[in-house]
Amino acid sequence: MTETYRRILLASRPEGLVTEGNLEVDDSATVPEPADGEALVRVRYLSIDPTIRTWMNDAPGYLPPIGLGDVVRSGGIGEVVASRSPAYPVGSQVFGLTGWQEYVLAQGGAMTVLPEGVEPGAVLGVYGTTGMTAYFGLFDVGGITAGEAVLVSGAAGATGSVVGQLARIADASRVVGIAGSAEKCAWLVDELGFDEAINYRTEDVAARVRTSLPGGADVFFDNVGGPILDVGLANLAMHARVVLCGAISQYNEDRPTGPRNYTNLIFKRARMEGFLILDYMDRFPEAQLQMAGWVTEGRIKHREHVVDGLEHAGEALNLLFSGGNTGKVVVAL
Amino acid sequence: MTETYRRILLASRPEGLVTEGNLEVDDSATVPEPADGEALVRVRYLSIDPTIRTWMNDAPGYLPPIGLGDVVRSGGIGEVVASRSPAYPVGSQVFGLTGWQEYVLAQGGAMTVLPEGVEPGAVLGVYGTTGMTAYFGLFDVGGITAGEAVLVSGAAGATGSVVGQLARIADASRVVGIAGSAEKCAWLVDELGFDEAINYRTEDVAARVRTSLPGGADVFFDNVGGPILDVGLANLAMHARVVLCGAISQYNEDRPTGPRNYTNLIFKRARMEGFLILDYMDRFPEAQLQMAGWVTEGRIKHREHVVDGLEHAGEALNLLFSGGNTGKVVVAL
Repeated sequence: MTETYRRILLASRPEGLVTEGNLEVDDSATVPEPADGEALVRVRYLSIDPTIRTWMNDAPGYLPPIGLGDVVRSGGIGEVVASRSPAYPVGSQVFGLTGWQEYVLAQGGAMTVLPEGVEPGAVLGVYGTTGMTAYFGLFDVGGITAGEAVLVSGAAGATGSVVGQLARIADASRVVGIAGSAEKCAWLVDELGFDEAINYRTEDVAARVRTSLPGGADVFFDNVGGPILDVGLANLAMHARVVLCGAISQYNEDRPTGPRNYTNLIFKRARMEGFLILDYMDRFPEAQLQMAGWVTEGRIKHREHVVDGLEHAGEALNLLFSGGNTGKVVVAL
Repeated sequence: MTETYRRILLASRPEGLVTEGNLEVDDSATVPEPADGEALVRVRYLSIDPTIRTWMNDAPGYLPPIGLGDVVRSGGIGEVVASRSPAYPVGSQVFGLTGWQEYVLAQGGAMTVLPEGVEPGAVLGVYGTTGMTAYFGLFDVGGITAGEAVLVSGAAGATGSVVGQLARIADASRVVGIAGSAEKCAWLVDELGFDEAINYRTEDVAARVRTSLPGGADVFFDNVGGPILDVGLANLAMHARVVLCGAISQYNEDRPTGPRNYTNLIFKRARMEGFLILDYMDRFPEAQLQMAGWVTEGRIKHREHVVDGLEHAGEALNLLFSGGNTGKVVVAL
């Protein structure tokens, strides 16, 4: 007897936020049998990342667009339920590109077996691409050194919240975050050790950044783009580094806005640099080990925003753009 | 008997191009007597640079704005006609911030005495800030290495024309320039050794850049900003460096346009970096010596666009923005 399983397919390309019509819930696929060297994985958690939204566009990027009718591409964690590969023992937890679906086949080397006892939320967050993005973005691309001032946008998100805490660990002179609610700002200051947090929905961000960083930011870690990127560019210290991590305010826009203040890079002899975490995968183990130490010491705290049900994955993705989440968004299946 | 001399004062701040009403020709100032340690310089040539236009704005920059009623700040060359300083012998040619005026006092160390026999146009161009900007921008900020492809905007200008030739000397795989007339493009390709030159007034720049640099630009040296910066950002090679030298298309704009394609810096793991040539002044001698060797060998060619008469300095400055010049703009007094 064949068993079927649920998958979320990309039915049409979204304009702006993802709507119900963009996704198709398909219950007709047959659970596959693993071939030699493969394992069958029951997916348990999905990692909801802004980059998924960019893959839905029919535009060249660092990975090909998700094809119409294809399962939505996504990182996730699952459990090996059948195996014909010694690399994936039955019962083990694995991490990799699972897609938005209940089952996936793990082929040789494509997934990572997790050590026992690690929290899935932490694996997808601080130890996953979002935490790694914070780590390599701040240390490698941003080149932060002790005594420097750091500005982080999207500060209550999965990456931004880790950036601020890492800046603290790196002995930054000042850590200022920009976030979208009073509750988020309180979390940043009271629990994560940010010096100041600015609520961009209710405050004059330009004025607040000017007063909270009178000497400008040595490192500006930008997750959002748009007007907030411009505020950051207007408040750079000499020889500043702007780390371009994302542009979450722009991914849903037809015609993204460019940063008018980019010429300040000239006057401040500053640099704006993009990166993709894919390039750092061979250095993840080193960074994850260090991160694990800080998590154990309580110097890195993390929070997950869990959405229940595969059928709500689209809404979970939209949370990132409406700012409805604090910390890492995860879908539990 | 006191002698008077002519000066050009900033009467009001320009909006867009400089108009007659923005400048005041003043013939009433008295030629000063050098005090002990000073010399009196008769100004002979002015270096006309885009940055002068930025100094006319009432906006913070890397130097304070020119005050209303003050002489327009400018580099220039003059001859020492009276001296009470052993550093400035009468009859010597000196280079420094002369301003738009017929006479200036050289105070201790503020001006550089030129070796005999050097051409004033070359001093202001290839050996001056424009040539040095090309040298340090391409080699230090751009970090060009042999075999890389280079795109230069404002390529027929004083800096851009040197950038392309330096790229050739650095064994670039391909050197493509963007300029504003067929005559300029012919000069770039036929005389300066560019592989291709694109006329932005008559051609589809985006399409031409795509076909002339199919692998993208490893170094994009941008002098102009605006839509051309966006075309360059859309055509970057992996790990490209965008050297922000200027934004000549934007200096006259009230609300400059930001580059919409800046997010391509993320996908291409690329960097956009600004610099000011002031920071490299202690390394000018090294670079000028090397440049002199290349000029002597005929590997660096230069052209000056000479405008006669101090009273035409404002029009000379406007040439930079209308694209009316090829090579370095100089005013001869």
